[in-house]
Amino acid sequence: MLSVNRTAMPAVRELIDRRDEHGIAVAEQENGATCIDCGVHVPGSYRAGALFVETCLAGLATTAITMGRVGDVPVPFLHLTVSRPALACLGSQKAGWVLKAGGYSAMASGPARALSLKPKNTYKMLGYRDTSRTGILALEADSLPDEEVTGFIAEKCGIEPENLYVLVAPTRSLVGSVQISGRVVTATLHKLEEKGYDVLRISHAAGRSPIAPIKRTGIEAMGTTNDCNIYYGSVSLVAEGYDPVFATLPSRTSPDYGRPFARVLKDAGYDFLKVDSLLAFSPAEVTVNDSESGEVHHFGRLNADVLLESFGFL
Amino acid sequence: MLSVNRTAMPAVRELIDRRDEHGIAVAEQENGATCIDCGVHVPGSYRAGALFVETCLAGLATTAITMGRVGDVPVPFLHLTVSRPALACLGSQKAGWVLKAGGYSAMASGPARALSLKPKNTYKMLGYRDTSRTGILALEADSLPDEEVTGFIAEKCGIEPENLYVLVAPTRSLVGSVQISGRVVTATLHKLEEKGYDVLRISHAAGRSPIAPIKRTGIEAMGTTNDCNIYYGSVSLVAEGYDPVFATLPSRTSPDYGRPFARVLKDAGYDFLKVDSLLAFSPAEVTVNDSESGEVHHFGRLNADVLLESFGFL
Amino acid sequence: MLSVNRTAMPAVRELIDRRDEHGIAVAEQENGATCIDCGVHVPGSYRAGALFVETCLAGLATTAITMGRVGDVPVPFLHLTVSRPALACLGSQKAGWVLKAGGYSAMASGPARALSLKPKNTYKMLGYRDTSRTGILALEADSLPDEEVTGFIAEKCGIEPENLYVLVAPTRSLVGSVQISGRVVTATLHKLEEKGYDVLRISHAAGRSPIAPIKRTGIEAMGTTNDCNIYYGSVSLVAEGYDPVFATLPSRTSPDYGRPFARVLKDAGYDFLKVDSLLAFSPAEVTVNDSESGEVHHFGRLNADVLLESFGFL
Repeated sequence: MLSVNRTAMPAVRELIDRRDEHGIAVAEQENGATCIDCGVHVPGSYRAGALFVETCLAGLATTAITMGRVGDVPVPFLHLTVSRPALACLGSQKAGWVLKAGGYSAMASGPARALSLKPKNTYKMLGYRDTSRTGILALEADSLPDEEVTGFIAEKCGIEPENLYVLVAPTRSLVGSVQISGRVVTATLHKLEEKGYDVLRISHAAGRSPIAPIKRTGIEAMGTTNDCNIYYGSVSLVAEGYDPVFATLPSRTSPDYGRPFARVLKDAGYDFLKVDSLLAFSPAEVTVNDSESGEVHHFGRLNADVLLESFGFL
Repeated sequence: MLSVNRTAMPAVRELIDRRDEHGIAVAEQENGATCIDCGVHVPGSYRAGALFVETCLAGLATTAITMGRVGDVPVPFLHLTVSRPALACLGSQKAGWVLKAGGYSAMASGPARALSLKPKNTYKMLGYRDTSRTGILALEADSLPDEEVTGFIAEKCGIEPENLYVLVAPTRSLVGSVQISGRVVTATLHKLEEKGYDVLRISHAAGRSPIAPIKRTGIEAMGTTNDCNIYYGSVSLVAEGYDPVFATLPSRTSPDYGRPFARVLKDAGYDFLKVDSLLAFSPAEVTVNDSESGEVHHFGRLNADVLLESFGFL
Repeated sequence: MLSVNRTAMPAVRELIDRRDEHGIAVAEQENGATCIDCGVHVPGSYRAGALFVETCLAGLATTAITMGRVGDVPVPFLHLTVSRPALACLGSQKAGWVLKAGGYSAMASGPARALSLKPKNTYKMLGYRDTSRTGILALEADSLPDEEVTGFIAEKCGIEPENLYVLVAPTRSLVGSVQISGRVVTATLHKLEEKGYDVLRISHAAGRSPIAPIKRTGIEAMGTTNDCNIYYGSVSLVAEGYDPVFATLPSRTSPDYGRPFARVLKDAGYDFLKVDSLLAFSPAEVTVNDSESGEVHHFGRLNADVLLESFGFL
């Protein structure tokens, strides 16, 4: 079986080797951990964002950025194809580790989760764990982790800190925008997992999503980046056999559909229990090709109006 | 003159080196031949499909996969640009070798054809033959070739079996779908060759075609994959001088235009003599830029209705 | 600070190493200078064009070529993302050096300008100069430079001729078409610079533009290639703070908007003083994301009619 921490390394290597070109910074901490800042104290770049996505997906994905359109407005889009989708998406990219160490907290994703087994039930379902001595973790956070945090991560992963690579990008940054658009396929598979579908039956996946503008605050950025996937994210799956659950994947099946995500949160008084917990994991549309019957299904549709409202075009 | 078997090697090398990431399998046979399974006993991947196409086109092409749309439906598309089109398309990618050895049969394409000179008249027209000691052949087949077959191929190519690399993908597989979409430019040049046009006057080519869903049977897959090119394939050529033959390239000039290819075959009682033999080599539309006069021509058009009927969207 | 002549080298290296695949020629002159012909005596290719663009942008950009549409006509498009836009675009890609040596003249662009400091005020504004011992220059010219010319370039750059790499493509060539479409972002930043805006406030940029057909004469090619950007070029900027100048960027704000560029020149009797000097630096449309306020603005629009008229579709 492949090691997700090994297959992710070429993307990490390009980030390190071409740090100047990609607008990022690389620092070695005293404990030997390598911290790659993709947007905290640096501007980042579209390419750094694409490599962040490829790292999160364990090198099992291709990415391309093109200029597309939402309504009459030109917007950059991220395109993805994913190999071994259950492993790449749920075994690596899923933000399944809520990291808390000292006063530091971050949503953690990427291949090192397959060392710390966060969350355990996902790796049980996948029948997978990595035994790599090197670990790669991606953090959505507004500040860089210190040595205490990287030491904690290394310990949970059972590796030496000097073999740990941590990528960091705030939600409110260009790499933050790219990497959340890069979650459109993983979000869909996470929703399938939550609904009890055997995700190992998904043999191939592809997707695209617009890349959100940078907003003023982290909470606004959380809204707009998720709206890219909810209102304009397209996912194409090949599955071994049809399942009625597929029809429930698009966002428009949600009771909270139709308003920008930030407004949904605000209207609920920021009480997450009052919000559909799977809305942020719902793409605008999905096609499913059942490779056993040869049938093809299309559910959902794009919604340019709500996305442009979320972007705040003037 | 360049060696098409040498320039194809970087794509083959990535397939071998990243076999796990790309969902394929590599086996060395007892006679030393390397067999790369891209879809017989393995799932393959979009990236493996793109590399299959680049290999067939002798490394003289770039590929990109984006999520596009056919009507209102999101569908992955393969985009191509081709350098030295006559050599890349006819001297390498054309499925010009009907391989039969023992009980095994396959449509063979790729750079090793320039060693075995199949068919001879194509290489005479091109004024080209390769003298590489390494050979790379791509097979559209439902099973892997055994040593008898690879030995036969090596012999026909005049090389040692240990220097032979064979890529295999069934029509009915993801790589099969990608690689047939990747034939949209070559199909067009083949039609030009069949009509007696001097294809060496084509100096540049680009194209795109949707990637077909995986169907239930090989015969259905043959229909749907070809419909991608026939009803939704776009080709852009730069030619040295205009020729009236260009107007005959699009599929809509064919008497069999307007129905899914599988139905055309069925309606003809699977008697290939009753079907327009060039329909499968006809893209939906072509633009030709005559670089001598500077003129630009556009022939044909896309047909989403027939393609969606062929895909069988429900 | 990074060296733009160092970061451009991987693209130059691919051009040299894969010259046969990319349809170009590489010659070492007696003084040791390396001359890379991308379209004077060779056909070039789409890939060579993309690498020409990446070289001009000092390796700080990603490129992708897809088949898009202008009206109902399929046309290849170049997509770009640019890191460190002020440095990449103005410090490298801008054609800021009108090279004249002996009887030879060419528009010179690319990273070697950061050695010769052409023009000085741009590098003063950027606060940047390169100290690389290697220099890379790109020439838009109809013939190759001889040793006298490359010796002159090397001297102006303060480097040995043997460390000089010169790329050459005529306006009227495939690489010429690609590389001018690849200027859509730089043109926009040049217009901002001309209007006195502090371009260092642009933190990220992306763009796309159709790739022009090859026309009969250099003057026609100059018209059509520029029309790609003027009538169908899209640019997306992230800026630190809003400025009213952004609204003046699109071509439709120009008094000469609405006719193909070649006709504008002809109607003015080829008296450049009578033509809006910034028209050729005006994209069809721009979006600007003010990353401080989070606001997003869209100015301008695409114009398929004028572009298809310029292309001369029959």
